[in-house]
Amino acid sequence: MAAIDDLATELSKLPGIGRKTAMRLTYHLLKQPPEQTRRLAQSLLTLSENVRTCERCFNLTEDAVCAICRDPRRDQSVLCVVEEPADIGAIERAGEFRGVYHVLGGRLAPLDGVGPDDLTMDALVGRVSKGAVREVIVATNPSVEGEATAVLIHRELATSAVPVTRIARGLPIGGDLEYADGASIAQALAARRAM
Amino acid sequence: MAAIDDLATELSKLPGIGRKTAMRLTYHLLKQPPEQTRRLAQSLLTLSENVRTCERCFNLTEDAVCAICRDPRRDQSVLCVVEEPADIGAIERAGEFRGVYHVLGGRLAPLDGVGPDDLTMDALVGRVSKGAVREVIVATNPSVEGEATAVLIHRELATSAVPVTRIARGLPIGGDLEYADGASIAQALAARRAM
Repeated sequence: MAAIDDLATELSKLPGIGRKTAMRLTYHLLKQPPEQTRRLAQSLLTLSENVRTCERCFNLTEDAVCAICRDPRRDQSVLCVVEEPADIGAIERAGEFRGVYHVLGGRLAPLDGVGPDDLTMDALVGRVSKGAVREVIVATNPSVEGEATAVLIHRELATSAVPVTRIARGLPIGGDLEYADGASIAQALAARRAM
Repeated sequence: MAAIDDLATELSKLPGIGRKTAMRLTYHLLKQPPEQTRRLAQSLLTLSENVRTCERCFNLTEDAVCAICRDPRRDQSVLCVVEEPADIGAIERAGEFRGVYHVLGGRLAPLDGVGPDDLTMDALVGRVSKGAVREVIVATNPSVEGEATAVLIHRELATSAVPVTRIARGLPIGGDLEYADGASIAQALAARRAM
């Protein structure tokens, strides 16, 4: 039936969801009250319509400037640079960082065709050159690409007088910051070193 | 952010999807073109609005009577009784069965509070008592509950003159018909025995 096949096809486009899982999810939804399926659909529509990137830090937001950038209690002079918006959630859960963020939108990955121009590097240099920043903490992932991205950031900001630090490798090499536990992230932030 | 949390909450209500997977799926969608998220939402809405059960066999359909029941090439005198609509897809893929179906909407499971009245048993007895049926093939799952359901069907139809057969256990005991391969299902249908 078209409606069932269509939904299974759309679901199987999601990562980690194959055709069989998509069919299982579809039949599961058919057994639930229709309101549950409608709520899921509505959440998807709200996401696609309302979520955009913060014009200051490129975090995801429903406003022009995200809640963290707007928060007067946050220290606007300390920038924490992360690869993806999801990394901000991980660092916020650690509860140690009181500065603001800068989302690169990825990491250097020449094999995947991701170069410096595909990241928000120019915007980062622009923010730092305005003079109000007194430290840049590079919190890219502790992977080969993340380290290469950190080196690039250090080089790009070398002409500024702003110290660039790197979060300590309290995280296992090859790991993914998004899924790290709060204690490791807090430790990695505390033990950051000058680059 | 509300839109992201809401979607992750709705996604994590699906079976096999925990909070972390739900967040990963949400961030994945945010990286895709918004049209993909809208298509998924639209498929969900179409499913919740258009899909209902066939008034004859209780298969899922977008019409009053499902495509299999309407098909003039199908033999309306042979009824294959299955637990769930998904089982019909599995049997259709085997390509051996040319009769029509009857969906019970579950199986006897006293521990889960599922008794005969929760299944479409009365409708099945009604279809058989109309006299146009010459065989009922019971294709409930080869599990303890599926066997108990098969015994119940046999008992309920005992007063009718219609032979009730059970698909052969070509399927491993404890398995799930929905995920069986076509060859096993075809063999199980061919080797069905009188109950």
